[in-house]
Amino acid sequence: MALIVQKYGGSSVADADKIKNVAKRVAATRDKGNDVVVVISAMGKTTDQLISLANQITDRPDVRELDVLLSTGETVSSTMLAMALKSLGHKAISLSGAQAGIRTDAAYSRARILNVDSHRIVKELGEGKIVIVAGFQGINDEMDITTLGRGGSDTTAVAMAASLGAQMCEIYTDVDGVYTADPRFVPDARKLRELGYEEMLELASYGAKVLHHRAVELGELCNVPILVTSSFNENPGTLIHGGITMEVRNKVRGIVHDLNVAKVTVLGVPDRPGIATTIFESLAEENVSVDTIVQNASVERLTDLTFTVTKSDLEKAIRVAEPAAKSIGARGCIADANLGQVSIVGTGMQNTPGYAAKMFRALYEKEINIELITTSEIRITCIIDESRVEDALIALHKAFQLEKEGDVL
Amino acid sequence: MALIVQKYGGSSVADADKIKNVAKRVAATRDKGNDVVVVISAMGKTTDQLISLANQITDRPDVRELDVLLSTGETVSSTMLAMALKSLGHKAISLSGAQAGIRTDAAYSRARILNVDSHRIVKELGEGKIVIVAGFQGINDEMDITTLGRGGSDTTAVAMAASLGAQMCEIYTDVDGVYTADPRFVPDARKLRELGYEEMLELASYGAKVLHHRAVELGELCNVPILVTSSFNENPGTLIHGGITMEVRNKVRGIVHDLNVAKVTVLGVPDRPGIATTIFESLAEENVSVDTIVQNASVERLTDLTFTVTKSDLEKAIRVAEPAAKSIGARGCIADANLGQVSIVGTGMQNTPGYAAKMFRALYEKEINIELITTSEIRITCIIDESRVEDALIALHKAFQLEKEGDVL
Repeated sequence: MALIVQKYGGSSVADADKIKNVAKRVAATRDKGNDVVVVISAMGKTTDQLISLANQITDRPDVRELDVLLSTGETVSSTMLAMALKSLGHKAISLSGAQAGIRTDAAYSRARILNVDSHRIVKELGEGKIVIVAGFQGINDEMDITTLGRGGSDTTAVAMAASLGAQMCEIYTDVDGVYTADPRFVPDARKLRELGYEEMLELASYGAKVLHHRAVELGELCNVPILVTSSFNENPGTLIHGGITMEVRNKVRGIVHDLNVAKVTVLGVPDRPGIATTIFESLAEENVSVDTIVQNASVERLTDLTFTVTKSDLEKAIRVAEPAAKSIGARGCIADANLGQVSIVGTGMQNTPGYAAKMFRALYEKEINIELITTSEIRITCIIDESRVEDALIALHKAFQLEKEGDVL
Repeated sequence: MALIVQKYGGSSVADADKIKNVAKRVAATRDKGNDVVVVISAMGKTTDQLISLANQITDRPDVRELDVLLSTGETVSSTMLAMALKSLGHKAISLSGAQAGIRTDAAYSRARILNVDSHRIVKELGEGKIVIVAGFQGINDEMDITTLGRGGSDTTAVAMAASLGAQMCEIYTDVDGVYTADPRFVPDARKLRELGYEEMLELASYGAKVLHHRAVELGELCNVPILVTSSFNENPGTLIHGGITMEVRNKVRGIVHDLNVAKVTVLGVPDRPGIATTIFESLAEENVSVDTIVQNASVERLTDLTFTVTKSDLEKAIRVAEPAAKSIGARGCIADANLGQVSIVGTGMQNTPGYAAKMFRALYEKEINIELITTSEIRITCIIDESRVEDALIALHKAFQLEKEGDVL
């Protein structure tokens, strides 16, 4: 008898029939003799609807109040699943984040989990109940509700698995695992059977929407194996864990893309200390989240500073950056709203030369111009024209032979 | 500077614009220098929608889970009002029933308030905040959410006013006070400026939907003056309090009606102890709420037992009562689904003869047949054909000259 934590995302619980379907899956896991804790997201588009409700009151809803409002989405779905399980004859109980003991810091809308006091869950499990925990929410020292930010239910699930010492954290979603690339664009894309935490972290951070990067970080920290799999079929999923054998397989594990990229370049920036601070503090004050930052080498004490933001933040970014640029004596700003990025990711790349060259050649052969390049130890990202992202994915998938398993470079 | 508790019902907060309107009213009260605690219901038809959501999962949702589900309605509206007040530049905070210290018993779906631990509210008021409390909900000893049943937000408001020692509990609704009869049926109906608790209790229990009877009971117990008034205009409302001068006004204060009445008569019931128990225990087990019970005088050891239920409960009542009737040797059951009731209410009636006779005569003159009669010390109720309720209201309003103020009998 094992303890299993299962997490079901919004598309898996989008309506009453889907919730009943989830109940059957949970019941089946229970019937095999396991203790089961289920973490659940809000139904379908509920969170977006609640945000739009708040925006009917004000453009800038108070963050404390918004967190309480958004938390109702997961409360609703958790009670519905508990009702469904009870009507199947199982003992079940829904718990709020607070009742499940999820203590967070006070950073509304992006709270971090400090610790989990699992005594209530342990008591309910001891009474033979399936415990359903409302994801995405916790409680701070003031006993006020906080939310963990987008994708927070994944983090709730991994935190639960870690604090309860669960065998496994199973993330059920609307895709059946992590692919070498998005199968909608790359017909040859192949589902990965396993991935290391760091690889998943890069994939999640650079465009793979299947799992939230904070959940992966926490999984790595607490060494919780995470299975990403579908709630709609019985296909085997992708297991993310720490025991990957690096030598026996393809060193590039996957290719991710992101179509939501815009670029701002501040031209003719004087090359002296404190300049970057002025620009990026102004952006932070206006809550513009900056992704990549590149500063070209300085020529004659003037340099160009480029950063990327999401497309929806571009207008605000320009509004903030232009006066900041003027104030530091830069020439001005130019922007490009029609960009995307492709990244190749793999732990094996870090000590092996030649991956970058191979990537750039594959793009060059398709006449795809590279606007910006950034890298981490296990990732290479190229920012390119949005209209060429699909071509780039197919070309890179082919170049690195990701349709095959095994070590090819 | 006074402390005022205001309660806004579902129709007063049905959409974002109405919530902004409520925010302006609350802000105006605050701007006069008062401390303000606002108790709020769920937006419009939210509670019904949540019940229907639960019914998509199962016909008999678990009551603990249903309470958590329903509580989200008031949580949503409380955060929206807090956001609206903050965007007007006021300090405001929403609190759940639990945070507001509303401790109840464990009777899910119809919990009673045991006590209010107001330390969090007092702290927030001390910081100059307007405090918005989610109505209708509390928390039991297990720290699980309970709800107070339909109309529970009224009770929350009066409990708040009592525990905080507020000057007044103001109930804002979609009508501007308590009328001598329903103005939709009786054109001459007049708004009452004041009413005693007991009178309001009878009016609320026998059809006046303006205020929940438990709130009135609690107001009487704790001697909290309750003002019932409109959230849509500035008309003076009706003040319910304990200091009514009985002698200087009409002894009949108001006429209420209820169109949702069905009747079951068990025929030929043997007149021996324990018979009523058999029938009404069976009904209680099936959760059928019985309103009026009348047993006719026994003739030759056989009697007829009649009780009324709401129309929606009639089918279930018959299904339960028929086998119960058979088991005790009764002849059978007959039912009538097309009934209504009219009641005259007034504290002054209790020591003054002639009210019943006058009521029956007024109905007789309109050829309205009386099916059942029940009375309390300050109320006389006649159950009549549903189709004659409007005629009865007009006739009785005229007979007791309720269009005039003052003592007329």
